[in-house]
Parts: sequence; C-alpha cells; structure tokens
Amino acid sequence: MRAVRVAGPGVVEVAEVPAPKLEAPTDAIVRVTLAGICGTDLHLSSGHADGVPPGTRLGHEFVGDVVDVGSHVRRIAPGDHVMGADFTACGACRFCEAGDHWHCKERAFFGTGTAYGPELHGAQAELVRVPHAETTLAPTGGLSDEAAILAGDNLATGWIAVERAGARPGEIVAVLGGGAVGQLVALSALTIGAAAVVLVEPSVARRELAERRGVLAATPEEAPALVRALTDGDGADVVVDAVGGTRVLASALGIVRKRGRIVSVGAQPDAAFALPVARAFVDELTLSFAIGDAIRTRSQVASLLRRHALDPGWVIDGRVPLSEAARAYAELRAQRFLKVVLDPHR
Amino acid sequence: MRAVRVAGPGVVEVAEVPAPKLEAPTDAIVRVTLAGICGTDLHLSSGHADGVPPGTRLGHEFVGDVVDVGSHVRRIAPGDHVMGADFTACGACRFCEAGDHWHCKERAFFGTGTAYGPELHGAQAELVRVPHAETTLAPTGGLSDEAAILAGDNLATGWIAVERAGARPGEIVAVLGGGAVGQLVALSALTIGAAAVVLVEPSVARRELAERRGVLAATPEEAPALVRALTDGDGADVVVDAVGGTRVLASALGIVRKRGRIVSVGAQPDAAFALPVARAFVDELTLSFAIGDAIRTRSQVASLLRRHALDPGWVIDGRVPLSEAARAYAELRAQRFLKVVLDPHR
Amino acid sequence: MRAVRVAGPGVVEVAEVPAPKLEAPTDAIVRVTLAGICGTDLHLSSGHADGVPPGTRLGHEFVGDVVDVGSHVRRIAPGDHVMGADFTACGACRFCEAGDHWHCKERAFFGTGTAYGPELHGAQAELVRVPHAETTLAPTGGLSDEAAILAGDNLATGWIAVERAGARPGEIVAVLGGGAVGQLVALSALTIGAAAVVLVEPSVARRELAERRGVLAATPEEAPALVRALTDGDGADVVVDAVGGTRVLASALGIVRKRGRIVSVGAQPDAAFALPVARAFVDELTLSFAIGDAIRTRSQVASLLRRHALDPGWVIDGRVPLSEAARAYAELRAQRFLKVVLDPHR
Amino acid sequence: MRAVRVAGPGVVEVAEVPAPKLEAPTDAIVRVTLAGICGTDLHLSSGHADGVPPGTRLGHEFVGDVVDVGSHVRRIAPGDHVMGADFTACGACRFCEAGDHWHCKERAFFGTGTAYGPELHGAQAELVRVPHAETTLAPTGGLSDEAAILAGDNLATGWIAVERAGARPGEIVAVLGGGAVGQLVALSALTIGAAAVVLVEPSVARRELAERRGVLAATPEEAPALVRALTDGDGADVVVDAVGGTRVLASALGIVRKRGRIVSVGAQPDAAFALPVARAFVDELTLSFAIGDAIRTRSQVASLLRRHALDPGWVIDGRVPLSEAARAYAELRAQRFLKVVLDPHR
Repeated sequence: MRAVRVAGPGVVEVAEVPAPKLEAPTDAIVRVTLAGICGTDLHLSSGHADGVPPGTRLGHEFVGDVVDVGSHVRRIAPGDHVMGADFTACGACRFCEAGDHWHCKERAFFGTGTAYGPELHGAQAELVRVPHAETTLAPTGGLSDEAAILAGDNLATGWIAVERAGARPGEIVAVLGGGAVGQLVALSALTIGAAAVVLVEPSVARRELAERRGVLAATPEEAPALVRALTDGDGADVVVDAVGGTRVLASALGIVRKRGRIVSVGAQPDAAFALPVARAFVDELTLSFAIGDAIRTRSQVASLLRRHALDPGWVIDGRVPLSEAARAYAELRAQRFLKVVLDPHR
Repeated sequence: MRAVRVAGPGVVEVAEVPAPKLEAPTDAIVRVTLAGICGTDLHLSSGHADGVPPGTRLGHEFVGDVVDVGSHVRRIAPGDHVMGADFTACGACRFCEAGDHWHCKERAFFGTGTAYGPELHGAQAELVRVPHAETTLAPTGGLSDEAAILAGDNLATGWIAVERAGARPGEIVAVLGGGAVGQLVALSALTIGAAAVVLVEPSVARRELAERRGVLAATPEEAPALVRALTDGDGADVVVDAVGGTRVLASALGIVRKRGRIVSVGAQPDAAFALPVARAFVDELTLSFAIGDAIRTRSQVASLLRRHALDPGWVIDGRVPLSEAARAYAELRAQRFLKVVLDPHR
Repeated sequence: MRAVRVAGPGVVEVAEVPAPKLEAPTDAIVRVTLAGICGTDLHLSSGHADGVPPGTRLGHEFVGDVVDVGSHVRRIAPGDHVMGADFTACGACRFCEAGDHWHCKERAFFGTGTAYGPELHGAQAELVRVPHAETTLAPTGGLSDEAAILAGDNLATGWIAVERAGARPGEIVAVLGGGAVGQLVALSALTIGAAAVVLVEPSVARRELAERRGVLAATPEEAPALVRALTDGDGADVVVDAVGGTRVLASALGIVRKRGRIVSVGAQPDAAFALPVARAFVDELTLSFAIGDAIRTRSQVASLLRRHALDPGWVIDGRVPLSEAARAYAELRAQRFLKVVLDPHR
Repeated sequence: MRAVRVAGPGVVEVAEVPAPKLEAPTDAIVRVTLAGICGTDLHLSSGHADGVPPGTRLGHEFVGDVVDVGSHVRRIAPGDHVMGADFTACGACRFCEAGDHWHCKERAFFGTGTAYGPELHGAQAELVRVPHAETTLAPTGGLSDEAAILAGDNLATGWIAVERAGARPGEIVAVLGGGAVGQLVALSALTIGAAAVVLVEPSVARRELAERRGVLAATPEEAPALVRALTDGDGADVVVDAVGGTRVLASALGIVRKRGRIVSVGAQPDAAFALPVARAFVDELTLSFAIGDAIRTRSQVASLLRRHALDPGWVIDGRVPLSEAARAYAELRAQRFLKVVLDPHR
C-alpha cells in the first residue's frame, strides 16, 4: 500500500510499503478514507526533530472504515466508519480513568517516529494499524469526515485549551497564533460563551478567516492595545499560546491580567523559559501546558458538531489526493493553506 | 408623581402618588427612565395573589438616573445612569457573601406588596426609592436601557436557571414556556454551549421567535418525541421550567433523562407537588428551585451583553408611555406582546 | 456450593446450589472470601419487595479470589484478590463514560432478584459469577477485606451522598439515620472537611458509635434544636437521608437551610412524596436522589482507605460463618449488629 | 503609643510613635490585643528588601478591639472584637467581587513599607488604623485570638494554596517547607481529605511537629523516595512551595507527577526562573502562584476553626510582650520558635 514518509529535511514522499497486520488481540486495521496534515507533521519532517529519520511514516489524523479487528475487540467491528484519536491509550489505567490519556503508559503517538515513545506507523496511508482500538477509535456517528478529522486532533487541542484555562462565560480570551489550532481555540472559546476572543496573528488572511466567524483579530503589534481596550486596561482573563516556543510565552505574559491564566498548547522545544517569577507571584498567575486529548473530549465535542453548535469545517481549505502529499506539505509550509486533508483513494 | 398601581382584579391604573424620599442613609432615589412589566406583575395584579391589595404599587424592573443618595452612599452618585436589581440586599451578610442575595434578611422585593416580605414601592413610576443602593444598583456601563432592564430581572433568571442546572457545553436543554423568561433561558443555554435547546411552547408566534435565534421549538405535544430524537431516546440532560405550577413540573419529569437535572424558575403557588419519588430515586434525578439574582449575575451577563455575545434585545417587543400602562398590561395578558417596557417620561 | 437465599417472608436459608460457570467472554468467577449483608438485603428478604420470590439468592457485597475468567478478560486474572462493585456495568457506554454506571443498559444488580432488572445471582455464596469483570472488579490493592467490602457498596453510597450534595469544607451536614450507610455518610462528610456533622438517630448505641468518631449525634426530637444552635438558626447546609421513605424526606425539609441541598440515598418505595413546592421555590432548595457507584468512587476512596485518612472498619461489628447467615440476618434486623459480614469458608 | 519598627539590617526596635487617627470615613482604629510576627517580617527587616527603610513600622497580623470608626462604617462598631486581614481592599470592585482582593486597586498591605504599594503603618503596635474597615475587619465570632491571628494571614495562605491547587480528597500532597505557613498548608490539605501529606523540611523539630498531627515528614533528601513510594512512582498530585525562591520551585518540579499541579505561596524575589518548559509541556504541568486572601477565606476557615475541625493553635509556640519584640524577632530568625505573637498590653 502507499504511505507518506519523510524523505529528507523538509521533504516527504509517497512510497509503497507493506500493509499493516493485526499484532495484538486489541488491534484494529482501518482503511483510511481521509487523513489530515497537522502543523506537527511540518515540524517532524523539517529535519529539526529528534527521532524522525528519513523513512518515518507520518500522519496522526484520520477517519476510515474498519476492515479487521483482533479477537478482543467487541465494540468496534469491520464495516464501522470510525474516527481516530491522534494517540492510543489503554482506557483502563489510573491516568485513563482520570481522563488524562496522554499519560497512559501504553500511549503511542501515530506517525511521529520515536519522538514521543515507541514508533507507531502514521495514518497518511491507505491502511493504518490501531492499537487499543476500542479506546482509540469511535464511530463518527454521523459527523462529516472533515469534522471527525478535526475532532480527532486539532479541535481536541482547541477545546482542551479552553477547558484547562477554566475559561468562563463572559471572559475575554486571547489566542496567540491563527493556524488551524489557534482558529479552533478561538471557536471553542466562543462556543462556551467568551464575551470576546482576540486572535493574534501576523497573516492578514488568517485574521480575516477568524473575523468572519465573529472573532476579533489583531497583529502582534496591535494586540496589547486591543486587549487593553476590551478590558479597561486589565489584560485578558485567559491567554492561549497556540504556537509554542518561549517567545510566544513571553507575549502571553504581556497581555494577561492579574490572576489570569495562560495555557500553552504549542510544542515547547526549548529546554528552559525564563519565567518572570517575581511578577508571576505578585500577579498570582497560572501557567498550564496542555496537549489535546481527543479520547476524552470527542463525545462532548461531537455533540456540538452534530447539531452545528460548533461548526469548524471551514478550517479545512485544502483536499488533495494522497499521491500529491509532497505538494500539500510544501503549500502548507508556505501557508498557502490553513489545513489540508489527504484522500488516499482518489 | 405618577405610578402604576393595582386597581382591582386584573386591572391596573396610573395614579398620582407622593414622590419618594430618602429614608435611610444607604438609600438612593432614582428617576426611572424605563421600567419593565414582568409576568410576575400579571400574577400580582390578577386578584389571585395574597398581600397585593388594590393600591399596591407595581414594578421591579427599572433603569434610570440617580437623583439623590443617602449620606452613606459613596459608590453611586447623583447623575449616574444605573440599572436596578429586582430586589434589594444588604451586600454583607453570610447569604450575600455567598452570592445568594434572595435570602438576605434585608431583602425587599420592589412592587410586590407584602407577598414576599415588607412592602417596597414599585418602580413603574417616575421615581423609585432604592434601599441598599450600593448593592441594589449598578451603573449600566454602556448597556442599552433595554439590555439593562433584562439583565436586572428576566435575564438574571434565565442565566441562573442554566447555572443552577450545571448545564455543560454539548448538552441538550429543554425549556418549558416561551414567555420572556423562557426565551432568555434558551438564549443563555445557547450562550454557554448547549448543543441544542428545545423551547416547548403552545404559541406558534413565540416558537417562531425562538427559532429565529437558533433554538428548536415544539408544542407540548411534540416535545417528547423531539427530545427523544435529539437524545437517542435518553431524554434531555437539563429541563428548565420557566412557567411554574405543578403541571409543568410533571411535564419536565416526562422529558428528563436519567441522572438529569430539572430547574424550576417559575413561581410555585401550590402547597404541594406529588413528586414521583420511587422513579426519582431509581433515575437519580435532581430537582432545584431557583429565583434570579441580578446582583450576582449582572457583571458576568453585562460582559456578554456589552460585546453582543448575548443579544436579547429582541425579547422586548413593546414600548409604551407610562400613562398607557393599563393597556400594556391588558395586551401582555392577552400575549399580544412578549415583553413590554414603560417610559415614564414620554 | 452453598449460597444464601430467601426462604420466606423475613427468613433466609443457606442452600446447596449449582456452582456458577462462565457465560460470556467478559465474565469472571470469584471465590468469595467475605460477603456483606446490606440493609437492602433485609428489605429484599422481608416479603415486601417485588421481584424477590423465595429461592432468590442474595448478596451484592463481596471480596474474593478470581478463579476463572472469560477469553476477553485481560486486566483481571485467576489468583487476583479483588473487590466487587454491587452492580455491573459495561464500562464503555455514554453513561459509563460519564461515571454514571447505574444507568448503563447492561447494569445487573447482584442478588436482588428481578427487582432492578434481569436477575444476577447473589454473592453471599462460595462462588459468584461476575459479568463485565474488568469493570465490575478491581484489585483490593492492599485494602483489608473489610475495607474493600465497604468500598464496594455502603461507603460508595456514603461518599456519593456527600459528592452529590456538593458539600464544601466548612459546611454543616446533617445525616438522617445511623445505620451503616448513615455512619459512612457522616465519616465521608468529616473526611472532606465538614465543620460539623450531626447524625440523627433514635438508637442510643448507634449515636454513641458516631460520637466516638467525632460526629455530633441527636435523636430525631433533639435534631432541629441542635442544628439551629450550630447554624445560628439557619439550618443545615446539607441534609442526607440515609434511611429512605417519604417521612424521612419530610424531616430533611425541616432542618435544611435556605438554598440548602437534600440528598436522599435511602430507597424510596412510595410512588409519590408531597413536596412542599411553594416553600421549596421561595427557599431555592435542591433535592437529589443518588445511588452509590462503587465503580466510580472506589479509586478515590481506596486512596483514602489505604492511608487511613478514612477509617471505617469499625462499622463492621459482626463476622459469622456463611452457615449462620439466617441468624446474622435476624440479629441485624433486630439491630443487634450495625453491619455483618459472612465468611463462606469458615 | 509604642510600635515595632525597623532599626537597621536584621534589627527591629520598639519605639514611641504618634497614635493613629481616622483619615477617611471608612477607617477604623483598632486597639491591638495580639499581633503576629510573620516570616515576611523577617525578610522585610533583613535589610535585603526594597521599600523598607529604617523607621518602617511592621506587622500585618492582628486582632483587637475597635475603638473608633469613621462616619461611613456601620457594620463594625466601637467595642467589637475583630480580626484583621493582612491587607485592605475596597470590597466592591471587579477584583473584590471575584474574591481576588489582593488585586484591588485600593489594596494596602499593613507594615510593609512601600514594598507593595503605598505605605500603611504596621499592626505590631498598641493601635492600628484600618482602611476600608468593613471589608478588612471581621468579628472574631468566638475564635480565640490565636486562631484569629492565623486565620487573618498564615492560615489564609495555607488554605488558598490547597484551593488554588484544586487538591481533591484522596490525593497526595507534598509541602515544601515546615515554617508556620508550610505547617498550615499541611493541615489544610488534611482537612479537605488529602490521603497523605508529606512535609519536606530539614529541621527535625519542625518535622516532628507535623508528624504529631498526622502529617508525614521527610528531609529534602528523603522526600523524592517517600513521594515515589506513596504514589507507585508517579509523583505527588500537588506540590506546594511554602518557602519561595527558585531553588524550591526546582525541587517541586522534581516530585510532581505528570499532569500535577505546583502552587507557590512563598515570596519569589528573583526576576526569573528557568522553567524546564519542554518537560512541562510533555508532562502537562500547571504552575500557579498564590498569595493568601484572608478576606475571602476567613468565613469558610472560621467555620472549621469554631468547631475544631481545623485546629492549628499549636503552630503558635511563642507569646511575648510587645516590649520584647526585638528578642522575639531574633529567636524566630534563629528558628527557636515556629510562630510568635506579641502582646502590646502586657
């Protein structure tokens, strides 16, 4: 079968690889009908990430049809149309019970080489093997493939950012970064009743996308003044870093109010950040780091998607055949798309 | 000055009465610029309510300009444009500290005779005396008079219904009754991220008003099937009774899911309700009663109103001079209006 | 093997019955090392309960050793020493995900005949078949058998009463009924930081048991005055009915404060309770019904038990061989014991 | 009157100073009957703090009798025996309404020079002027002076650490530092139902004090192994830094579990802390800074103190006349006391 894999620094290719097989009685094999490309994939294939040598097969966002299941899989059956979570979890340990699947000892992150643990082949492929299928997969239940792709990764991250921040109705939320995740943080914040959401993003096109959905938008230069104007000078109640990196954390500190909450859902590759701790103490700040958890959030989020109370389909502005994955990656890297999905069977 | 008062069963009149004066150092006198008529006023003036003899002066919804304050009032000053809460509270006792102002021992409910405690003259008048002015009043802070009238009573009730129910994003909320309060419960539930809200109401006009704002609507006959369809047969997560009376409580029990929550914000004049307790136990139901608390909710609600994240102005479909109050009451009783405000100075 | 079953109204017997076998691949067979007798068992065997004919096998509290598991059971293995929950649940449906296992469509309640759904034989026996073993069972993890018996039923109920009430540190909690469940409600309330707990119970012996653990105790006659004294006349923040029946609900209403919360965890056999709805509305009361959920609470509760931060072992004051079950039931009915456990292998 | 003031680096003196007078209609004058010395006072008088020149009058913990009130003070009257909060707040602004009094624009911190804003003379004196008396003071309501001193500062800090961490019953809490605040964090964590609390402290005497109250104790060297043993190697759910400084923050990171929460209530004098951000991201940590808020917590805490559900009086192990303040400071600095109170009238 064909699958997307890293070819070299900044380059991917579609290659013929062996089809996956069931390896454990809790596995399933899914025939992928749509796979997403995430900002994380751009980083992993950039040549700057550890544990992702050429040949690494990419992709952790997918929907598809179950074609085979192990002997212990009962809740999912061949023929089911399912959405995947971006990583697997056992569903039964202390962390899974608490809804913190990322910390499950059996977590494996699809398509990320050995960057986050033992390798599990990616889902930008015709078929994908899914460990702990009963926990990792869920029926799409009438969601469109596009909605399900988002619920399985980027929207889970957007939603959890708002949840972790404890954002309350009536609050002012600032979001740093207008990529797919940032846009979905902004939508999530509006959904739970933020009084106003400010998306901070240099690209005019991405700001306009947000503004069309009722989000306020600002360049990084304009943001502090806009936030002050909205909050009588206090600063934002919640600031979400949807980019990652210490420079963005520093920006977040610049616009958060006293007793405000900063949540970072962007990858933090640097070893250390010089947290201004005297100020954080006097202002009683809270700083949280969060990774999406589609397994936990998908039933709540799906309820909203199904009734269009949350309607993020527009975030996906590119859809190309799997065979053109190299081009899709390049255009996404150049920000000519916001979010691209790959169709393995076109 | 002129004020609305009860003339007889089902009849009100505008009469010349003495202007109010400061009676305590914490009082203020407000020149009313807009006063609302609430469903409660229809009940109080119907002849069926205790403690509301002819001559009782009505009205507990108002905005206006402060014209005089007692010697201990510092945070409010003559000239301030303010919104009133529907009842007063001391702001400092155990109940006030906990945000339960209704249970303050110094509570007085404007314009309700002695039905709920010592009499405090109503606000459907040119002037109104406001005890505990620093707690009872708040600057409108740029809200329209219409928005402020709603935030001071009916929207506070709508908001608190959703809050008391613990309604979470993604849940299905049913609202019984499409009067002003029911419409505002529905809007509040959408604002905090309900996946769907079903308004149950016999009047086609009131159902259509709701549908125009993204609420689903059903007649009482249609409601059970619609709720089942939306919830895979489970029943609504939350049911709010926005009418009152035991018959409506019984309807709520008919559409709530197991482990669901019923909140009643409609007046309950009957002494007893035959609660089906065996079923309530096996289904682990929760039943709460709530009265709006504008003092607690107004700052959160105002934040949403100010940025139009919550936009309920359309609920007010009638605006008449104070002199025509008798006609306004009659038309409201006949449901020719959803919500009427009186202008004392036109 | 031997098992306890209903012999006639108010009488149980130990009879030889066929040993259970695996019936589904998710089943386990447990060799019971200790089984509890619950107040519910007294009711079920009284002759007044529907669905419990003579011959019904009793018991829903047990610990033991796994002796066999179905082919899909991986997390539990023969040889494991486990605690059971009082009822089974699938662990994967919407209700299970939300932590409301009682409402799982695959719930079966051990040893209750057909009173609550399809029959599942009781655990007061040498062996018991456990459906959905991975969800229903958990390793005792070092808990004593006595602690595990309590965590599997009565303490789960006591804990959930406090949780459902939303009891906060510093509040005053009244508990109606000093049986095993009432005592465990009281301990749970102390554990989470109630300022004071009042146990209301006619039996002097049961009051003294509570007083020895730092609980205040009162007869039903003394209770209103004691609660008033503790609360400056306001009434209890939380009242838990640990007995059941409408008469006790009425007592709860007599001592709860305005905006207070009543939780009933006692069975409610009557069809209807005359809820004083006008008062409930004006006082903004909340009334909840709750059934314990050992599956949800056991990991949190076990954490406290393991470190003796919650130490309820004293509640069990009787331990008799299974062969003397008839006597144990009779003495428990006569309140000569608070809580009895049966040893099937002595 | 006599008051404690800074004499030079590390030295305080008792000096004759002018008695305070009412300066605003919301002021009160309190005759101090007991004043506490806080760890903060040692820092302020050390010569290393900005804004605390010689002559600065110290003390922010006090109970006493009201002797005079301004014309707008109604809820407090001469003769009332009251407890003070450590800082003042207006009680009416957005931050005060939200229970975040520290961020009130009218906050003034007693006895800290200009280190935290405009100077307000300290309470280690015969008399103290209290701005915003209705908010800053509360009747002791039957608490002992010692309990009230603690509730007004150090216990408020201990309580809020646990609250801010979102510590839940059954969790494992580690506390770094066994001074008065650390001991009170530990007690607070036990009160709300922590399964175990580990106090990390080099001094054997301070460890033993904690152990006598059911707290586990460890040296900094022993702590990691003890925490691992208690948590199956996972790390503590919550770690509270009750010392301050970046070195202690680093220790906290060494024993917190994945998805754990660190709260620092110790002063952070350094400009920056090198937060290991890559690890914080992958482990989804939360880091909060908190300052006690006696105004918010005192009614909840007093409820527990009054019924001895929280009993911290033993933390105060020294009581000396005001005239011997210099010696008290010196002995406290040498850790010969855990907590000292000064009696101005002995």
